[in-house]
Amino acid sequence: MSGTSVEKMSESEIKSALEDLPKWNEVGGELQRTIQFDDFVASMVFVNRVADAAESDAHHPDILIRYNKVTLTLSTHDAGGITGKDFRLASTIDDMVG
Amino acid sequence: MSGTSVEKMSESEIKSALEDLPKWNEVGGELQRTIQFDDFVASMVFVNRVADAAESDAHHPDILIRYNKVTLTLSTHDAGGITGKDFRLASTIDDMVG
Repeated sequence: MSGTSVEKMSESEIKSALEDLPKWNEVGGELQRTIQFDDFVASMVFVNRVADAAESDAHHPDILIRYNKVTLTLSTHDAGGITGKDFRLASTIDDMVG
Repeated sequence: MSGTSVEKMSESEIKSALEDLPKWNEVGGELQRTIQFDDFVASMVFVNRVADAAESDAHHPDILIRYNKVTLTLSTHDAGGITGKDFRLASTIDDMVG
């Protein structure tokens, strides 16, 4: 094993890391946040920013767009759970929207 | 009532209309189709085309992006079910991807 951030985090590590990202929840073994915008167009602007970040990072969230609400769900399939990569992307997303 | 396509369709009307759109299914009272692409970037290109069509039509599907798979879910909230607007958007989407 490599010791890098792609190792699956333990439940206590996740709880601790979530303290720094209070807008995210652990749902079904994944990190999830729903963000509300003014309208569909604003949702799409945000989703394209997330997509660019995801592609740059080679780490892709599930993205659900429901008009003015976007739900992002993050986990690391290769690791079978939540890793440091997910928290890094979650933090990047928080920086986009506050 | 207006007699336009925003009236909720009956189950038999939906079944009949689905014969012309065999790639769509009725799931939980909504029209749904999942389309697979080569990669995440191709998914996003498609999603942006759908978003443009949705915005033009003032009728917005739920859009779920899971890397190279995009699931579209259509219903007409104002009518409380599936309407001709949903089938029209489904047909437009089919024209984009075959």
